Amino acid sequence: MTLPKHVRIVEVGPRDGLQNESEPVSTAIKIELIDRLAAAGFAEIEAASFVSPRWVPQMADGSAVMAGIRRRPGVRYSALVPNLRGLEGAIAAGVDEVVVFGAASESFSQRNINCSIAESMERFRPVAAAAKQAGLSLRGSVSCALGCPFEGSVAPSAVADVVARLADLGCDYIDIADTIGVATPNQVFPAFEAATRQFPLERLSAHFHDTHGQAIANVMAALQCGVTIFHSSIAGLGGCPYAPGATGNVATEDLLYLLQGLGISTGVDLEATVAIGQWISERLGRRATTRAGNALASRQARLAASRLAATQTAVPSPCTSVCTIDPKTGRCAGCGRTLDQIANWSVMSNDEKLAVLATLPS
Amino acid sequence: MTLPKHVRIVEVGPRDGLQNESEPVSTAIKIELIDRLAAAGFAEIEAASFVSPRWVPQMADGSAVMAGIRRRPGVRYSALVPNLRGLEGAIAAGVDEVVVFGAASESFSQRNINCSIAESMERFRPVAAAAKQAGLSLRGSVSCALGCPFEGSVAPSAVADVVARLADLGCDYIDIADTIGVATPNQVFPAFEAATRQFPLERLSAHFHDTHGQAIANVMAALQCGVTIFHSSIAGLGGCPYAPGATGNVATEDLLYLLQGLGISTGVDLEATVAIGQWISERLGRRATTRAGNALASRQARLAASRLAATQTAVPSPCTSVCTIDPKTGRCAGCGRTLDQIANWSVMSNDEKLAVLATLPS
Repeated sequence: MTLPKHVRIVEVGPRDGLQNESEPVSTAIKIELIDRLAAAGFAEIEAASFVSPRWVPQMADGSAVMAGIRRRPGVRYSALVPNLRGLEGAIAAGVDEVVVFGAASESFSQRNINCSIAESMERFRPVAAAAKQAGLSLRGSVSCALGCPFEGSVAPSAVADVVARLADLGCDYIDIADTIGVATPNQVFPAFEAATRQFPLERLSAHFHDTHGQAIANVMAALQCGVTIFHSSIAGLGGCPYAPGATGNVATEDLLYLLQGLGISTGVDLEATVAIGQWISERLGRRATTRAGNALASRQARLAASRLAATQTAVPSPCTSVCTIDPKTGRCAGCGRTLDQIANWSVMSNDEKLAVLATLPS
Repeated sequence: MTLPKHVRIVEVGPRDGLQNESEPVSTAIKIELIDRLAAAGFAEIEAASFVSPRWVPQMADGSAVMAGIRRRPGVRYSALVPNLRGLEGAIAAGVDEVVVFGAASESFSQRNINCSIAESMERFRPVAAAAKQAGLSLRGSVSCALGCPFEGSVAPSAVADVVARLADLGCDYIDIADTIGVATPNQVFPAFEAATRQFPLERLSAHFHDTHGQAIANVMAALQCGVTIFHSSIAGLGGCPYAPGATGNVATEDLLYLLQGLGISTGVDLEATVAIGQWISERLGRRATTRAGNALASRQARLAASRLAATQTAVPSPCTSVCTIDPKTGRCAGCGRTLDQIANWSVMSNDEKLAVLATLPS
């Protein structure tokens, strides 16, 4: 089994993740999330979407988000654009890469954007040309490449067809997306094999949703195909509009845990990523949808407790990765919680949390 | 990629799953769970544990559980036994198979049961002999075969050593268990390869926990090794004593979804399994820890709603798989809820559920 030595992660939490969150998220939190991710080593961040705010109110503040972040050298900030107007917004906001999209299923294309696949590609032609003209990187996304909520299975030849059209538009990168998270690993090879007949493997990426719990197994299958670019969402942010309560993009923490176990480098700091995932989930008032992230966060808290007991000197707090635990009080200097309380926070009820908060030194 | 055509599932939810649930579960619910699983096609069910009730109060009612179930022909009901006293209890209760266990890590063995691996195996020798004498099937479980909370990584040679000792005790089946759910797929082949030098592959099983979200990928790797027996837990019941709030055994629904996608038969009804998972999670007052299960349950409810709208005749309710939806009222004849309410039940807060319950016809 030959696997790649290095893999690039496109962190899509701030866009594909947050877009599917039902509660509105403030611009300030979006900015802080993106800046923290860049600091943790993510070199590609899907940061915004320049679509009509009537369609996607959650993404209406794309310009403000892009204006508010601290641009980190070497990081590529991307945004989704549906049309020329969106592209103009993205260019004005200073994004590095724009993303256009087409479905591999006619039914999905018709129901999602009211036109055929071929028509949707033609509509993107002037957008793609203007993006290249402006010197931006252009990424194309093939949605429903591994299954469609209306048609069921999708033929690899349909994937190849859209890949060829996106390549013809001048795309630098193309995503093969299991938008609704229905694939099992046996479907991964045929889809990528068809795609590589139209576009170089090293610029194809895998975008898998974890709706049915198969995403990490599908990533493994894609690694075995030689894919080296993967999309994921911090804390598993996001959901699936076709299944209320279902999980969304594969969680970045689960993906990083896999890659670390396989000895594949990413340039991303797993421990910092775990802390970011716990932080954003707490801000959103829910538990992180990542198994590795929650298990590692709990482990980090227990390790910090042992270190504290052994050394009696300040140790880093796992709550945000920026505070320390005071050896005199055993409490986080930032939030005031004990390590035990931090470790169990994600599994406490709201009443239990309120009871803890009531005991904290003010 | 050659995969097995048929796989056997050992459903461990009633024992390994419930044992790690923090709230006590009534004997009646355990019995109903086991009977429903048998009716859905599971031919192997880990049903009880005959350990000291002081150690594991949740499992104190093993005899009552075994006495209460409707024994289904062709189903093998198994139980964990730590010693001769436990074996006597298991024999008296009429279990078909008993399970003995040894760790592949010395530190874990010492901290878990206060003796060395070799000593633990010798203590099981009279238990194993008496079990065979009584005509029972004997299964051995190698815990921490893919990682240890104290030692970290575990050498395949250590796995082989315990497998050899369990084989020497006369075990009919041996489980390779990632007890704390830390493995990634690259560790699966070396562990099974070492085990098969000591014991036939067709009687080795894979027991994976999903603590870090890698279990389905590890199952895929084990299938590629030719493993044909897999353990899983309905609704992902259970947890991990080493990581509060972490997930436990791989969820049966996620495993079945994978196997169905790969075209591997199991004899188990996925739709019925999904309903059982939703039912037991509701009884335990929490959301099922299975991505496939939650997504499919939501899908079943939406499909039932469409069928109802189209036919205006009674359709099966997805709430328990036993009721029907009344076409006049659009409500489940059993619980009184609408299909929408059933579909969204798992993501409602307790307050929202109470509000729904208050509106139901009494």
